[in-house]
Amino acid sequence: MKEIPVTSLQRLPIYLNYLKTLDDDIVNISSKAIADALNMGEVLVRKDLAYTPATGKTRVGYNRKELIAAIEEYLGCNSKKNAVIFGAGGLGRALLAYQGFKNYGIDIVAAFDTDSKKCGRIAGKPIINYSYAKEGIRKTGACLAIIATPASAAQEVADLLVSCGVKAILNFAPILLSVPDTCVVRNMDVAANLAILSSYLA
Amino acid sequence: MKEIPVTSLQRLPIYLNYLKTLDDDIVNISSKAIADALNMGEVLVRKDLAYTPATGKTRVGYNRKELIAAIEEYLGCNSKKNAVIFGAGGLGRALLAYQGFKNYGIDIVAAFDTDSKKCGRIAGKPIINYSYAKEGIRKTGACLAIIATPASAAQEVADLLVSCGVKAILNFAPILLSVPDTCVVRNMDVAANLAILSSYLA
Repeated sequence: MKEIPVTSLQRLPIYLNYLKTLDDDIVNISSKAIADALNMGEVLVRKDLAYTPATGKTRVGYNRKELIAAIEEYLGCNSKKNAVIFGAGGLGRALLAYQGFKNYGIDIVAAFDTDSKKCGRIAGKPIINYSYAKEGIRKTGACLAIIATPASAAQEVADLLVSCGVKAILNFAPILLSVPDTCVVRNMDVAANLAILSSYLA
Repeated sequence: MKEIPVTSLQRLPIYLNYLKTLDDDIVNISSKAIADALNMGEVLVRKDLAYTPATGKTRVGYNRKELIAAIEEYLGCNSKKNAVIFGAGGLGRALLAYQGFKNYGIDIVAAFDTDSKKCGRIAGKPIINYSYAKEGIRKTGACLAIIATPASAAQEVADLLVSCGVKAILNFAPILLSVPDTCVVRNMDVAANLAILSSYLA
């Protein structure tokens, strides 16, 4: 696998979503057409797609279905991966019920919460007491985790995840997690993102 | 206001969260201490903070409270702004109840949904029928919006927001919105972000 810059990687799901929304009778698509539709530069699009196994043809472009398959392959959508959620408040519960993860081959298998009143089932998926988290991660072989706890609990959860060998964390808690270099974290601080937007209005 | 690169802007809430977690007896803090704590480069920290009105002193660093105030001022936390949510599914309802927006001076005033069964109140905030959205935005003077609808409804909502003069949209729907240059969009595609993380595991 070629080393892909994170900015290119972030655009791959955007191409994927766009290509999937096109009508079935669109067989081929050029990098220029993709670039125009997404308001991006053509060279950038071609560069990004070159990281995937997709190959375009001069004057024809990419076969749309092959390009979709190539991006999906690159993103690992075809290899099933299990993920767990920590924190079963409003956000955690919403994510547990969200169907969109399947498109990427990701199965959210369970949520954990310290509050036993929150334990039970949502969308057929279990919310389990936090004291069983280690065991649950081991049994499900989860390699991805989402932290949707309050900020005050997030670092403790991250430490537990690291000790269980989880190597990728999507963090909604508004704190910067301290993890070893072997673990990747992406921060999704919703309020901070809205604040960033609002600073454009000033 | 100096023109700030988006990457610097994105780091300001991270500094802010970190500085706020420190003990009250920490009066001054150097850019090196901030950089070390957040695992970043010192030059980068100093550059980022130079966009704010904060001024550090040689060998002393920044006064922590003044630095917090400077970042908050830069991010517009002190000027109150109203925001609305579109889509009152699990995610929309969770965001309506979320308390973290207040730290940035943002008040989520209402949510809108086409499903009248979802209308009512959550955390004291109204969920209103979508047909009243235009009127609601006008009455509340909302300048920020969050789209938490299914992908199929998101563009229609974005068009409505643009027509109402909303200039900043946080988009959770997994599609790329088409909006005029006068409107800024930040995408928060949760599944795509988890997929990006999982591609690091391959």
